[in-house]
Amino acid sequence: MNLARDIVPTLHDLAEASAAAITPHFRSNVAVENKGGERFDPVTAADRAGEQAIRAILNARFPDHGIVGEEFGIERGDAPFVWVIDPIDGTRAFVQGLPVWGTLVGLLHDGQPVAGLMNQPFTRERYWADDGGAYFRGPDGQTQTLRTRTASLANAQMATTTPDMFAAGLEQTSFDHIRSQVQTCRYGTDCYAYCLLAAGHVDVVMEAGLQAYDIMALIPIIERAGGRVTTWEGGAARDGGRIIACGDPAVHEAVVAQLANVAS
Amino acid sequence: MNLARDIVPTLHDLAEASAAAITPHFRSNVAVENKGGERFDPVTAADRAGEQAIRAILNARFPDHGIVGEEFGIERGDAPFVWVIDPIDGTRAFVQGLPVWGTLVGLLHDGQPVAGLMNQPFTRERYWADDGGAYFRGPDGQTQTLRTRTASLANAQMATTTPDMFAAGLEQTSFDHIRSQVQTCRYGTDCYAYCLLAAGHVDVVMEAGLQAYDIMALIPIIERAGGRVTTWEGGAARDGGRIIACGDPAVHEAVVAQLANVAS
Repeated sequence: MNLARDIVPTLHDLAEASAAAITPHFRSNVAVENKGGERFDPVTAADRAGEQAIRAILNARFPDHGIVGEEFGIERGDAPFVWVIDPIDGTRAFVQGLPVWGTLVGLLHDGQPVAGLMNQPFTRERYWADDGGAYFRGPDGQTQTLRTRTASLANAQMATTTPDMFAAGLEQTSFDHIRSQVQTCRYGTDCYAYCLLAAGHVDVVMEAGLQAYDIMALIPIIERAGGRVTTWEGGAARDGGRIIACGDPAVHEAVVAQLANVAS
Repeated sequence: MNLARDIVPTLHDLAEASAAAITPHFRSNVAVENKGGERFDPVTAADRAGEQAIRAILNARFPDHGIVGEEFGIERGDAPFVWVIDPIDGTRAFVQGLPVWGTLVGLLHDGQPVAGLMNQPFTRERYWADDGGAYFRGPDGQTQTLRTRTASLANAQMATTTPDMFAAGLEQTSFDHIRSQVQTCRYGTDCYAYCLLAAGHVDVVMEAGLQAYDIMALIPIIERAGGRVTTWEGGAARDGGRIIACGDPAVHEAVVAQLANVAS
């Protein structure tokens, strides 16, 4: 399988099909279901329509590939190639009309993330990666190669979805410890922050409680752009959980070392 | 002065001139100056270029009007008509490459906000108001009339720029009290949240420590769309400070009453 030749055209088709399914629902005062449990977790008609559009293309083109989706579960999960779908990452942003949500599609080969897509149709932004590099196409239609930037922790721009995502105790202490050292920490970013990190505008993204489908598609985008993304303990990010991403690998190493100190 | 005839065309010209001045700096890794003091307050070349572009148009067309701007101070501040400019509201969003900042221009007549503009050139969104109504133009180029929606506090979508904007003590207690009653509170929104409130996607925006130029342009947009915006004490919002905006006037009345209870 040559990813640039065999997979990237499909990533673009998935972006367009999911955008067509999702965009009519954006800012249309969609009904919000509640998955239940204590935490408010909006699931919209857009989420389901987006995932169905993506699954239809994947099942037609790659009938032997597996699919894991937030809304409709697992098909052929033990296949060598498995697609991981989050049709709307940042559903709360979506519900409030903010254009910082994104459609995430990642591809695993033997458990390793090898390609990924983040598409934001309202702003007409697309971020993707194959094994050769990470790329961005914006409203002007020009494709650019993504490169992270170097930084010190003291001048770092940090982003995270919400301070409420860190549980009281170790998570909160760890977050406060890193946040206290950066120049600015901004909230409300979801998948968008990881893409801005790949593009060299954000230096550190620190989160907790992520699902695998929240991060899988973003791993190749970050890594091919020159950044590093792992769990807080330095392990593989692909299962989600507590995630730290840095545009500058030296900053990542320093932050992971600090997090180990806080935890010990 | 007929606002729709004499002022609204100028609002659109200001939007386009400031967009042309600001957009080249967005995501260009601009140098960030620091205004000094403990709080990080980025001021970019874009901020200055945007305000200069706006002042040039206003001084040419309305030489007897006053101008108050974040970057270049006050001209003719005692004139009957005074323009209030914040070239980039949400400078931290701007610095991180997030498209939720906006260019704000408000017009005061004898101290009352009578017209306002919020322009977001990257997403190609424009929100404005005159004495007849509040309007939105999006990427599709169609102009729509803005209307807030009704809500209960229990199903309200709430937004605020950051929980860090509330000082420990009364401000923090008041924010936590209101936040605990809404369905969702989302961060990272700046001026964008007030526009989404006017458009009926967000129900409550609660903030503190605002400057007059952070809110002035947004007051006519919120009010002409059917919403209410005041200080936490129910006073005029035009001087900034602690601000509460609600799309549903009944929710606003209830929240202001609760805030009075918390304060007493």
